[in-house]
Amino acid sequence: MSGNSFGNYFKITTFGESHGPAIGVTIDGCPAQIPISEEIINQALSRRKPGQSAISSPRKESDECKIISGVFNGLTTGTPLTILIENNNQQSKDYEPLKEVYRPGHADFVYQQKYGIRDHRGGGRSSARETAARVAAGVVANQILKNYNIEISSYVFSIGEVTLPMELRTEYPSDVINQFITRIPDTVYDEKAIQYLNTLKEQGDSCGGAIICFVKNCPIGLGNPVFDKLNAMLAHAMFSINAVKGFEIGQGLHSSTMKGSEYNDSLVSFDDHQTQYHSNNEGGITGGLSNGNTIYFSTYFKPVSSIKHTQSTLNTSNQPIDINVEGRHDPCVVPRAVPILEAMTALVLADAILSAKNDRI
Amino acid sequence: MSGNSFGNYFKITTFGESHGPAIGVTIDGCPAQIPISEEIINQALSRRKPGQSAISSPRKESDECKIISGVFNGLTTGTPLTILIENNNQQSKDYEPLKEVYRPGHADFVYQQKYGIRDHRGGGRSSARETAARVAAGVVANQILKNYNIEISSYVFSIGEVTLPMELRTEYPSDVINQFITRIPDTVYDEKAIQYLNTLKEQGDSCGGAIICFVKNCPIGLGNPVFDKLNAMLAHAMFSINAVKGFEIGQGLHSSTMKGSEYNDSLVSFDDHQTQYHSNNEGGITGGLSNGNTIYFSTYFKPVSSIKHTQSTLNTSNQPIDINVEGRHDPCVVPRAVPILEAMTALVLADAILSAKNDRI
Amino acid sequence: MSGNSFGNYFKITTFGESHGPAIGVTIDGCPAQIPISEEIINQALSRRKPGQSAISSPRKESDECKIISGVFNGLTTGTPLTILIENNNQQSKDYEPLKEVYRPGHADFVYQQKYGIRDHRGGGRSSARETAARVAAGVVANQILKNYNIEISSYVFSIGEVTLPMELRTEYPSDVINQFITRIPDTVYDEKAIQYLNTLKEQGDSCGGAIICFVKNCPIGLGNPVFDKLNAMLAHAMFSINAVKGFEIGQGLHSSTMKGSEYNDSLVSFDDHQTQYHSNNEGGITGGLSNGNTIYFSTYFKPVSSIKHTQSTLNTSNQPIDINVEGRHDPCVVPRAVPILEAMTALVLADAILSAKNDRI
Amino acid sequence: MSGNSFGNYFKITTFGESHGPAIGVTIDGCPAQIPISEEIINQALSRRKPGQSAISSPRKESDECKIISGVFNGLTTGTPLTILIENNNQQSKDYEPLKEVYRPGHADFVYQQKYGIRDHRGGGRSSARETAARVAAGVVANQILKNYNIEISSYVFSIGEVTLPMELRTEYPSDVINQFITRIPDTVYDEKAIQYLNTLKEQGDSCGGAIICFVKNCPIGLGNPVFDKLNAMLAHAMFSINAVKGFEIGQGLHSSTMKGSEYNDSLVSFDDHQTQYHSNNEGGITGGLSNGNTIYFSTYFKPVSSIKHTQSTLNTSNQPIDINVEGRHDPCVVPRAVPILEAMTALVLADAILSAKNDRI
Repeated sequence: MSGNSFGNYFKITTFGESHGPAIGVTIDGCPAQIPISEEIINQALSRRKPGQSAISSPRKESDECKIISGVFNGLTTGTPLTILIENNNQQSKDYEPLKEVYRPGHADFVYQQKYGIRDHRGGGRSSARETAARVAAGVVANQILKNYNIEISSYVFSIGEVTLPMELRTEYPSDVINQFITRIPDTVYDEKAIQYLNTLKEQGDSCGGAIICFVKNCPIGLGNPVFDKLNAMLAHAMFSINAVKGFEIGQGLHSSTMKGSEYNDSLVSFDDHQTQYHSNNEGGITGGLSNGNTIYFSTYFKPVSSIKHTQSTLNTSNQPIDINVEGRHDPCVVPRAVPILEAMTALVLADAILSAKNDRI
Repeated sequence: MSGNSFGNYFKITTFGESHGPAIGVTIDGCPAQIPISEEIINQALSRRKPGQSAISSPRKESDECKIISGVFNGLTTGTPLTILIENNNQQSKDYEPLKEVYRPGHADFVYQQKYGIRDHRGGGRSSARETAARVAAGVVANQILKNYNIEISSYVFSIGEVTLPMELRTEYPSDVINQFITRIPDTVYDEKAIQYLNTLKEQGDSCGGAIICFVKNCPIGLGNPVFDKLNAMLAHAMFSINAVKGFEIGQGLHSSTMKGSEYNDSLVSFDDHQTQYHSNNEGGITGGLSNGNTIYFSTYFKPVSSIKHTQSTLNTSNQPIDINVEGRHDPCVVPRAVPILEAMTALVLADAILSAKNDRI
Repeated sequence: MSGNSFGNYFKITTFGESHGPAIGVTIDGCPAQIPISEEIINQALSRRKPGQSAISSPRKESDECKIISGVFNGLTTGTPLTILIENNNQQSKDYEPLKEVYRPGHADFVYQQKYGIRDHRGGGRSSARETAARVAAGVVANQILKNYNIEISSYVFSIGEVTLPMELRTEYPSDVINQFITRIPDTVYDEKAIQYLNTLKEQGDSCGGAIICFVKNCPIGLGNPVFDKLNAMLAHAMFSINAVKGFEIGQGLHSSTMKGSEYNDSLVSFDDHQTQYHSNNEGGITGGLSNGNTIYFSTYFKPVSSIKHTQSTLNTSNQPIDINVEGRHDPCVVPRAVPILEAMTALVLADAILSAKNDRI
Repeated sequence: MSGNSFGNYFKITTFGESHGPAIGVTIDGCPAQIPISEEIINQALSRRKPGQSAISSPRKESDECKIISGVFNGLTTGTPLTILIENNNQQSKDYEPLKEVYRPGHADFVYQQKYGIRDHRGGGRSSARETAARVAAGVVANQILKNYNIEISSYVFSIGEVTLPMELRTEYPSDVINQFITRIPDTVYDEKAIQYLNTLKEQGDSCGGAIICFVKNCPIGLGNPVFDKLNAMLAHAMFSINAVKGFEIGQGLHSSTMKGSEYNDSLVSFDDHQTQYHSNNEGGITGGLSNGNTIYFSTYFKPVSSIKHTQSTLNTSNQPIDINVEGRHDPCVVPRAVPILEAMTALVLADAILSAKNDRI
């Protein structure tokens, strides 16, 4: 009700601030007997954590999780599964100068207006650190998806001005994607992006970027008409990630300039729960439900807000002030956003899978 | 839970199929003492109904609503407000040939796979007719927004290949927008679009399009971190509208190619609940909460699925068949989608307004 | 959120006022392919409607339902199922004198204080007429329970001072129960109760009463720990019925005076999903979950509020006034409450059945 | 959705097993700027914890809480408030013999049937230890109620065969109640109950009991018609507490034998938000909404399941076995259930308070 939960059947609630004792997540509605361990969650967390490469923030967040409840002898028990990730290596002093100033692009101002109080340290609740809890929950969701052979993979296709051409935006195996620190699975464009990011860093500047995600082997009919269409749930999920400003599914924006005769994906055959189409302009979702094709969608991120430029803003007395945001920030969030985006996708699909059990009696 | 409800506080549930006795909506959570009448709902419905202009479907849907409950002496009573809109002028016979065939682009196939049963007449539940119920509910939501002086207006900026240039995509008054049957508020581009649609009609083809929406005077702090960010709720709402394939807020997709130093909207002054910024790249939402700037976002629609071309598809025995969809269809949905989009926006904002009452005790 | 919905998976929302055009219910989350018809709903409604016997209100409510959506060719389609019951035979004039007065025992005063407005005619939303919508929804829930062989039956064991002795409170077949207009399935006590009610009628007075309900063949493990225990859901359901003031399950109040050594139901054998116990003090629910025994519980109703005595109260200007409530009222609600109570029980169980599908993957 | 959450606006989710690393609770929807500290929570926890008196279990649970999130500088921030209570002094070995046996009266059997897996140590999730998390959340709820001057107090009026006579069941100040280890606020009956419990202990037996609760200064109109009546929410809350088997509000069961002319509480005057009635048979709730009178209700608990008698039951291979439950158990739960019951009451009322903010615009 207050925005800290996601999902209807496989429902997660995250909690915690960037510089509090810990962040965490509770999953309510996880079926019993799903195998889970701290190890596989920690592996997933390491894909998100800062300090993992030359182009990410040098902050060191150890991101080791602890399962508090809901698991017994390595299996879920059907009771709420809570995962804690302690905060350490916090440098709250770094934020002392920001206590009475609203950083441009950040949620400082709006939180203060909304609640009349905010934890200014590291952005408090609005920090992207909260997404570590989502990654942890996404691991559990993925364990459910494995039962259905559903595979999610995503990669970066744009970092600032460096954009992978459309013809190269095909599916890539996850292990290939993970070889590239930019998460652009192409040697040339990965290199270009690294150079671009290095230049930005020197300039104390930042940039945006974009990620494409593929979901294979999704059963037909996931999603719920009319408000909880699968695309609506995915859009909701993506826009719940910090800095997301655009989302398109299938041909997306381009579809608005097409004709029906060009666009319609005709059904070619259906056999053994496998659907064949002559095209996939829909991106795997028709009428709000998965149609048996591979689902694909693109998510667009604004530039990182923290830059080492002098910017004008207001202080908490609403007076103009110049600010220079110090700290250890990524120049671009998208490489580290890949596992977050995959986690949110897994959460949407696990929820849809559980919902679909009641489509028929 | 099964996708037919929207909103947490101002919660609507729609019901009804295209060719059933009626469609309708129940609003639970509407505060008492809001003025409402069948007349103002009917006015809003007339903006959505087919047959209203030369470029829309010649189907005649009278779309007169009946308030069943929740209103006494012209005011809401705090009890559930149900609005019914009877279906008449249905030509169910038109759909008899489609009973055993899956129309390309439509939800026929996925509904059948999901539920094992579907009402094939006029698309049943998946028909865009359902959105009339949303428009009705949107009127009630708007009555709440009026108390806060919030104004929503939207117009079409793209119909197929005809696109209003970026520099013309400024705010227009609603009465100006309503003068144009394409809902493109520009004489030149309106005319171009009409010609384009006429050509499509002759070809039995269809096209997509796009709508931009502006929300003025939105209080600061609407939306809920972290999953129910205002942009996430708007994205969810927009993708719940049939045929939507893309959504962007503020600079949207373009923001992903920008630098932080270009993008950040600096706070310039804050006075008397009015915020001033040096720019509005965010589109009025920062950190998931309204920031006091005008909110604006664009929504992209795929082409209308029903075209008078021979298309290959499957029948309900999963055998290939050629199909030629007859019927009275719009060549492009966006002119009639404007009030639907505004209704969904109003629903998101009314819900956010009610939620915000508990931000502080 | 505002109290007009019940259930999490099989979710109903009722709407409508006593003297508005209609009351109704929307079921969201009903699986597809459940057989349903207006006929079987009307049959259930006739068990609830007034005027059915010498001891009930002489009001004539025809209570014919109309299915508006969600059913095609006699089967549910998985889309929201809306049922309307028109109000006719309303005598709103009867309530004109009550427009500015708060009837003792009724919700008039509290509604006015809560909302600042109320539909005074026939109690408006607070009228027991709303329960007809529940009975209709209960029929659909029961169709699901039939798939699991679950049987619900209930009867009256107390009307005012006439109480069926404990040793006679065993299970009775529904057709036996229905033979008695008091719904006390015993010739002697039925007769006593009728005489008692006739005396009350002459005195212009009313009384309370009590109902016991049995649920047979309930699968083991229904209900959800910790807050949505099956007994908690049943208690919630029962107290949502007008006039309910007490509820006990199994040995109920008596259990509080027992010793553990007397009370504990020992498991004797378990075979083929059949559990045997040496006793059933728990009333079929242990640890909040159905345990395989027959579920039984008792629900207690206060006296009907409308009596033909002069009572002191306040008017809407908060000034003392004497009132004499005219109208066509039952002297005791419990005979007609039997189908309402069964409907609420069916709703709880159908919801629990759907929930349990996700206990394990 | 899976039963681990309570409340719609002030929503709590508890997690944790008896012998896991910790139990805890997350509150989502708590308004900002509520003062809260670990100290006041710990004080409340000490009223619930075992080992506090000669008649309670000698188990030592330190029950020190840790606030993980949602509080900054002693005030809530509007973000989710998570409280952890570590489990220590667990003697999991005590439960090793119970691993493969179903204890009579406990949830062992039904959990195993439902989920196919269970944490047998200390009852796992079904342990009453989970209620410590509720007590913690109840403290936060109470901080909200204080703003409205709402006061909750409850005491034990029955322990097994020892029952406080009806005429002594009036309101008592909390500090008086707390002086009695049985929580029966009467020297004579407290003493009788202690003797009774000592005898039971010698016999290795247990008993049930009952608690009455009073809520003073409740604003008029709390609760939501029709399903979320305040009494329905309270009933739901009470039956969510382990071992509860009966609940009655106001005259409760007795009301079912009364006449309307005896029962109806007439409004006598209404002034300055203070309502006066000539009686309070309703127990402060009419038509599902608080009516301005003191709310009072009684809750009945079955005997503690764990007794030191040889009982017959089944093992996990469904074979008959004799069992003798060792361990450190209370002979009667009601003295320690008092703070749990008050916490659940506070949670219901805080939720109703927040809901009521949207009764009118």
